[in-house]
Amino acid sequence: MTELAAGTVNHQVRLAARPTGLPGPEVWQHTEEPVAEPGDGRFVVRVTHLSLDPAMRGWMNDARSYVPPVGIGEVFRALAGGEVVASRHPDFAVGDHVTGQFGAQEYVTSDGAGVQKVDVGAAPMSTHLSLLGMTGMTAYFGLFDVGAMAEGETVLVSGAAGAVGSVVGQLAKIRGGRAVGIAGGPEKCAMLVDELGFDAAIDYRAENVNKAVRAAAPDGVDIYFDNVGGEILDAALARLRMHARVVLCGAISQYNAEGRPVGPANYMSLLINRARMEGFLVFDYADRYPQAVAEMSGWLNEGKLRSAEDVVTGSIGDFGDTLLRLFRGANTGKLVLQIG
Amino acid sequence: MTELAAGTVNHQVRLAARPTGLPGPEVWQHTEEPVAEPGDGRFVVRVTHLSLDPAMRGWMNDARSYVPPVGIGEVFRALAGGEVVASRHPDFAVGDHVTGQFGAQEYVTSDGAGVQKVDVGAAPMSTHLSLLGMTGMTAYFGLFDVGAMAEGETVLVSGAAGAVGSVVGQLAKIRGGRAVGIAGGPEKCAMLVDELGFDAAIDYRAENVNKAVRAAAPDGVDIYFDNVGGEILDAALARLRMHARVVLCGAISQYNAEGRPVGPANYMSLLINRARMEGFLVFDYADRYPQAVAEMSGWLNEGKLRSAEDVVTGSIGDFGDTLLRLFRGANTGKLVLQIG
Repeated sequence: MTELAAGTVNHQVRLAARPTGLPGPEVWQHTEEPVAEPGDGRFVVRVTHLSLDPAMRGWMNDARSYVPPVGIGEVFRALAGGEVVASRHPDFAVGDHVTGQFGAQEYVTSDGAGVQKVDVGAAPMSTHLSLLGMTGMTAYFGLFDVGAMAEGETVLVSGAAGAVGSVVGQLAKIRGGRAVGIAGGPEKCAMLVDELGFDAAIDYRAENVNKAVRAAAPDGVDIYFDNVGGEILDAALARLRMHARVVLCGAISQYNAEGRPVGPANYMSLLINRARMEGFLVFDYADRYPQAVAEMSGWLNEGKLRSAEDVVTGSIGDFGDTLLRLFRGANTGKLVLQIG
Repeated sequence: MTELAAGTVNHQVRLAARPTGLPGPEVWQHTEEPVAEPGDGRFVVRVTHLSLDPAMRGWMNDARSYVPPVGIGEVFRALAGGEVVASRHPDFAVGDHVTGQFGAQEYVTSDGAGVQKVDVGAAPMSTHLSLLGMTGMTAYFGLFDVGAMAEGETVLVSGAAGAVGSVVGQLAKIRGGRAVGIAGGPEKCAMLVDELGFDAAIDYRAENVNKAVRAAAPDGVDIYFDNVGGEILDAALARLRMHARVVLCGAISQYNAEGRPVGPANYMSLLINRARMEGFLVFDYADRYPQAVAEMSGWLNEGKLRSAEDVVTGSIGDFGDTLLRLFRGANTGKLVLQIG
């Protein structure tokens, strides 16, 4: 093991208050504490990359969900990547690159539980957090397992220029389907078609989404992969084909809404079309991650799949401001905060 | 064959106009025409029982659905039972009892397509239209196939005192589950528990449904079989267990609503609980009806299953008024109009 530099300080971002609406600076508390040498069977990771995800908004609420909320005063939960800088663990050596749920802080001490080693020679750390991480796994199992996509089917995806959506459309093409993306603004739509190979893109800010979906998927939608909820979910429901599948991945349009969320008025389309709407959590597929990562890596190397990433360089103190990019529709692809 | 009595007249109920809201008398046109002797390969049925179903409201709308709307001026679509009174068909003899989509009229001429012979010695005609007909098939395949019910699961059903709902709860008990019904009024609720063997009943008119569902299903709901939509669907979504199934069978609270239907605000519970909401149409299971009818008949004979029926005796002219009982919550069990 290497010894930590004397006086190494860990800067942290903790949840100070539960927000109403968009999470502003009052939500965060910035703290620091010394980093101790690791004990037996433990190691210290210097965090270099933080994954910023829409689900983080839900973790701020004091509500029943698939994981407990982050407690007030706790370091905020975050997937991250980093480098081992001190170790008394037999399986993790100084210099190893790892990913795990390290939280919004510069250093973390770990016993290795839930930590994966990654090969930053094969793909950069940001890609291990996106295409080859939870983001890619979410797209893969959501489309192929929950959506049960078959060759030739039409896949409509919202939040299509986002982290998960940009992968879903590309996977639909790889599987021999038609990919239609919904995103906000002409730049994002151009990227979907010109860079990621989508068949069509709909700009929900400029177009009537109902009409645009009809035009882009004239025979209807076999799979709608929903990242946004709200009116766009309703527009998709109105165009389902028989035995269609609606894959519920997120509802970013609702996360910061005050008052009750809006339900999909067209849900009875599920009955008329013998269709189903299903939620899932990627963690349920953990035993199949290695197979999916191997397959995705292959497509990445063959140039069939691109990792759309929005890597912001800054300090840990920029965590809160950077996260807001997700809810303002300001980013494209996977949002990652690279530290320093 | 027997000859028809000279001058036999067929009284019919036709759709005169598409309703807004509840279908009043202005929706119906009453016509009559002579009944002709059947041609070769055809037979005449005197209709004795009409099945009255919530789905009829949807058939009045000029909207895309699983079947075309009934056209203005057409005899209104209805499942019915009757007796063959004249025949030149080799497989159907005078005196045979049959069910089929005969429409809201006193006589129909058929070539046998879609017509089933039934044994009125084994069960009365009203039961062939309910428990042993589409109603029972809807409950059976909805709960066991779409809902994929397993032994020991908690099944919540709305419209529980209605035709389909009353069967769903009983089937849940037969399969070894816990049955909780939601219905309107103390008489219906008492019937569910005292006569049909439900474990608990919730009176949505008198109780806070959210709290009542929590009390009746403290560990949550594995299957919610929805016949009503609206706020009750939302209450059920809020109490789903992990991997729950919401079976969409109907939405009677919405059928006569003017303006847009209300969507389920709590639909994101599907994501949190990795649950699914799925629509179905019983016709998709037609090749398995015989097996299901045999099984249901067995349970009926063993006294494990009761057919809850609301048989109204009247003339074909009472069709429209009788149908309104469904939308006013006035009936219990399967609503059948017995002619004459």
